[in-house]
Amino acid sequence: MDRVVVVNLASTEPPWNGTIPDTFAAIEPALDQPADVGSPLPASSLYALAAFESGAAYINFTPSTGASPRALDEVARQRGLPHAGCDGKTGETLLKSVLAPMFAARNLDVMSWVGHNIFGNLDGRILDDPANKAAKVKSKDHLLGALLPKPPQTHVSIEYIESLGDWKTAWDHIHFRGFLGTPMTMQFTWQGCDSILAAPLVIDLVRLVDRARQNGEQGQLGWLASFFKSPLGCTEQGFFRQLAMLESWVAEQPASS
Amino acid sequence: MDRVVVVNLASTEPPWNGTIPDTFAAIEPALDQPADVGSPLPASSLYALAAFESGAAYINFTPSTGASPRALDEVARQRGLPHAGCDGKTGETLLKSVLAPMFAARNLDVMSWVGHNIFGNLDGRILDDPANKAAKVKSKDHLLGALLPKPPQTHVSIEYIESLGDWKTAWDHIHFRGFLGTPMTMQFTWQGCDSILAAPLVIDLVRLVDRARQNGEQGQLGWLASFFKSPLGCTEQGFFRQLAMLESWVAEQPASS
Amino acid sequence: MDRVVVVNLASTEPPWNGTIPDTFAAIEPALDQPADVGSPLPASSLYALAAFESGAAYINFTPSTGASPRALDEVARQRGLPHAGCDGKTGETLLKSVLAPMFAARNLDVMSWVGHNIFGNLDGRILDDPANKAAKVKSKDHLLGALLPKPPQTHVSIEYIESLGDWKTAWDHIHFRGFLGTPMTMQFTWQGCDSILAAPLVIDLVRLVDRARQNGEQGQLGWLASFFKSPLGCTEQGFFRQLAMLESWVAEQPASS
Amino acid sequence: MDRVVVVNLASTEPPWNGTIPDTFAAIEPALDQPADVGSPLPASSLYALAAFESGAAYINFTPSTGASPRALDEVARQRGLPHAGCDGKTGETLLKSVLAPMFAARNLDVMSWVGHNIFGNLDGRILDDPANKAAKVKSKDHLLGALLPKPPQTHVSIEYIESLGDWKTAWDHIHFRGFLGTPMTMQFTWQGCDSILAAPLVIDLVRLVDRARQNGEQGQLGWLASFFKSPLGCTEQGFFRQLAMLESWVAEQPASS
Repeated sequence: MDRVVVVNLASTEPPWNGTIPDTFAAIEPALDQPADVGSPLPASSLYALAAFESGAAYINFTPSTGASPRALDEVARQRGLPHAGCDGKTGETLLKSVLAPMFAARNLDVMSWVGHNIFGNLDGRILDDPANKAAKVKSKDHLLGALLPKPPQTHVSIEYIESLGDWKTAWDHIHFRGFLGTPMTMQFTWQGCDSILAAPLVIDLVRLVDRARQNGEQGQLGWLASFFKSPLGCTEQGFFRQLAMLESWVAEQPASS
Repeated sequence: MDRVVVVNLASTEPPWNGTIPDTFAAIEPALDQPADVGSPLPASSLYALAAFESGAAYINFTPSTGASPRALDEVARQRGLPHAGCDGKTGETLLKSVLAPMFAARNLDVMSWVGHNIFGNLDGRILDDPANKAAKVKSKDHLLGALLPKPPQTHVSIEYIESLGDWKTAWDHIHFRGFLGTPMTMQFTWQGCDSILAAPLVIDLVRLVDRARQNGEQGQLGWLASFFKSPLGCTEQGFFRQLAMLESWVAEQPASS
Repeated sequence: MDRVVVVNLASTEPPWNGTIPDTFAAIEPALDQPADVGSPLPASSLYALAAFESGAAYINFTPSTGASPRALDEVARQRGLPHAGCDGKTGETLLKSVLAPMFAARNLDVMSWVGHNIFGNLDGRILDDPANKAAKVKSKDHLLGALLPKPPQTHVSIEYIESLGDWKTAWDHIHFRGFLGTPMTMQFTWQGCDSILAAPLVIDLVRLVDRARQNGEQGQLGWLASFFKSPLGCTEQGFFRQLAMLESWVAEQPASS
Repeated sequence: MDRVVVVNLASTEPPWNGTIPDTFAAIEPALDQPADVGSPLPASSLYALAAFESGAAYINFTPSTGASPRALDEVARQRGLPHAGCDGKTGETLLKSVLAPMFAARNLDVMSWVGHNIFGNLDGRILDDPANKAAKVKSKDHLLGALLPKPPQTHVSIEYIESLGDWKTAWDHIHFRGFLGTPMTMQFTWQGCDSILAAPLVIDLVRLVDRARQNGEQGQLGWLASFFKSPLGCTEQGFFRQLAMLESWVAEQPASS
C-alpha cells in the first residue's frame, strides 16, 4: 500500500472546551502527560495527528475538531500531507447552501429559517445527547449568516426518532419578505438516506485528496469546500461558487494516462 | 421622454400554430392583408413589432411569442434596439433552475419531477383555458431536460383556485436515486405572491435593458437569462450560471457618473 | 367450499354511458343479444351478476359500476345474497372523510380543497387514461360536497409517475376561512403503499360480508360504509359516523362459539 | 350584570411544583400567610378561586393549573358554579385528536409522531422560556398515548420565531406501519392564526358555560371536552367522540323561548 487516506466517519464528539495552542511545539510535550492531567487535544484530533504521523492524508467528514486547529495543519504541512473537512454536506445543509444564495440574488429578505431534522440511526442516537448535538447544530446553522446579507433568525433541531432508522427527514421553513415587505414562505421536506448520501462523497473525497497529494498539495484543501458544511481553507459557503472551485481544479489536472 | 421600454405583462396567449417566416421581408406584405385572411403573426408579436417600429426596446415577461421569432430580432437589430425574454422566472421555475443543477452536480439521478401550481388571479383564470395553459406548461417544464443529464419524467399542472387570489402555491415532488439506486424524495411548497415577485424583476429589467440600449447593445440580450424561464439568446438554464453572466455584464459597466 | 365472496379488485373501468334499467326483467333479454349490439351492462356488472348467479356474495372495491344498479341489487336480494361497495377508501379520500367533518364541526369555512395524487403501479397506468380516470376522480371528489355545509371549489388529479411504483403520494391543499373571514391553510402529504393499505381492508370485508350472509342479511350492506369512497346503501360520508355504524353492527353480533 | 364567566386567556404559567391538598379546608388557612412563606396555589388557581368567590363561572383556556385541583372543584360545587378546561384545542392538537383515532380504527400502528410548532406572538415568546414551555408541551403531547393502542415515540417542540407573529405554523410527521409491517408516512403543515382560531371557541364556551349554569350544572363540565387539550371531567380524547357528547347535551336543551 503506497498511500493511505484516513477518513473520520465516527459520530460527532462534544465541542472541545479547552484552548488548543496554535503551534505543535506548544502541544507536543503535553501529549505524554499522565492520563489524569488530560489530553491537550480531543480524540478526533489525536486520530488526525496519528494519521499525519503515519504519513496518511486526512479527511474529517464530521463536525468534530479533527485537523482543524492551526497546529495540526502545521503538522500536515511539515509532512507534506493534504487534508480536508469538516462535516460532510449531504442533505439539509446542502440545500441551505444552494437556496440561500438564490434568496440573496433575488433580494428576498429571509427573516427566519427553521430546520427540523429527525432520524433514527446510531448517529442520531449520539446526537440526541445535548453535548454532542451542540457541535452539529452549529455546523448546520452558521452558514446562513455567511450567505445572506442580513442574518435571519435561525433554529436547527436534531431529534432521534428511532422508527426512522437511517432515513433522515428534514423539514425547513423559510419565511422571507419580498417587494413592499410582503411576507412569503417556502417549505421543503427532504427524505434521504444519510449513509447512501454520504458514501459517494467519501469515495470521491478519498480519490480527490489522494490525487492532490500526488500533485504535491499540502495543508487544507479549500477547493473541496463543496463537500463540507464547515470548509477548511475557504470562507465561501455558497454551493455553486464552491463547485466552481472544484471544477477549476479538475480542469487544471492533466489528462490521466 | 427620450427612450421607451415596452414590457409585455399580458396574460399568456395560446401557442401560435402558424409558421412564422425567418425574415421580415417575408412577413411584411401579409401584415396589410384583409382581416379574414388572418395575421401572419400572433398578437404579442404584433405588439413587439409596433414597439420596435416606434423605437422602443422590448421585454417579453410572458411565454407568448413576442419578439422571439428570428424575423423580429432582425427588425430590432435593424433599428438598433435590444430586447429580452421570455417568461419571468419568479417562483417554482426559479427553484427548478436552482435545484436541478444541485442534483446533477451530486450525481443524484432525478427520476421524476412533478410540479402542481394553484392560484386564483386573472392570470390563473386565463391559464385555466387549456389553449393558454399549453404555452405556460411548456415554458415551466422544458428546462429540466436541459439541466439534468437524463431527462426525468415530468408533469406540470396549473389550476385556477379562486380563493387563493394572487397567492400562488406550488408543490413540487422530486423523486431521485442515489448511490446503489436508493430512491429518495424532496418535496417543496412555495407560497408566493406572483405580482410581488414579478414587480421588482420588471423594474430591474427595464433599467438593465435601457442601460444596454445606451451601450449600443442590440437584438437578444442573452445575459439577462437569469430573469426568464425561456431565455432568448442563451441556452444556459442553470440559475447560478445565468447569474454569473449578469454579474459579468455589470462588472464591465463603467461607474455611473 | 361452502360459501364464496367475489371481490372486484380490477383496475377502474371507464364510466358507463348507457342507461341501466331499474329491473332485472328489463335487462335479462338483452344479455343474450349478438355481440355487435352490445351489452346492456358494463363488464364489472356482468361479473357481479355472474357472482350472484353462482350464489356468491359480492364486494366492489373499485369505482366501476359493479352491483350498484338497482337491478343488480334486486338479483342479490332474490338470491338472498349481500353485497357491498364501492371503491375502497385507503388513503387520500379516507383523510378527506376524517378531516372535512372537523372543519364543519369547528365552523371553519373550506373555500377550496385540492388533491394531487401521483403513483406508478398498474392501477396508475390505467387511471392515466382519461376515460378510466373520470370515474375515479368523481369517486374521490364527491364526498366533500356531502360533508361540508358549503361545497368548496375542488380539484382532484391522478397522474401516473412511473418511478413511484406502488407508492402513492398525495398532496392536499385545504384553504379555509375562520373567524372574521381570515384565510388559513392546511396541507398534507400522504405517502402510502396502496396494495398494503388495501389488503387488510379486503380481508376484513370478505369476513364481514360472509358473516352478514350467515346472519341472513341481503342486498346492500350500508353499515360497511367506512370502507368505501362511494358507499352503497348509506348516505353518510363522515368516517367516524360510518365507523359507529360498523361498531354498532359488531356489538350486536353474538359472541363466536 | 346578572352572571359573569371568567376566562383565563393569559399566557401559560410554569408547572406548579408544590403539592395542592385535595380539600379547600387544608388550603384556606395558608392563603393569608406572609408573602415570604409563599402561596399554596399558583397564580392561575388564585384567580380561579377569586372567580368562584365572586360568584362567577370559570373557564381555563390555558394549560395552567387554574381550577383543575380537586379542592377548587369543591369550591365551585359549594357555590353551585360550573367550570371547564384546560387549554383550548385550536390547531395542531385538534388535528391529533382527529387523526389518531383514524390510525387506531384502521389498525395502522403509529411508531412515531413528531410535531414542531413555530410562531411569534407574545404567547410564543413566553413559551420560549423552558419553564413555561414544559406545561404546554405536556398538554399537546399526552393525548396520543390515550388515543393509540400502543403509545408511539413522540416529540413536540414549540419555538418562538418572531417574523411569524400570530401565524402559528405546525409541521407534524407521523410514521406508521401497515400490513406486513410496511412503514408509511403522513405529514401535515397547519398555517393558522392562533387568536382567530381561539376567539370563536372562547365565545362559544362562555355561552355554553353560562347556559349550563342556568341549568343548575356545577363543577367540571366534561361534555365540553371537544374544546380542550386536557379536558376536565372526561377521559375521552378523540375529537368526534367528544363532539358527540356536546351534541347530546345540546339535543337535551329545551328550545329557546
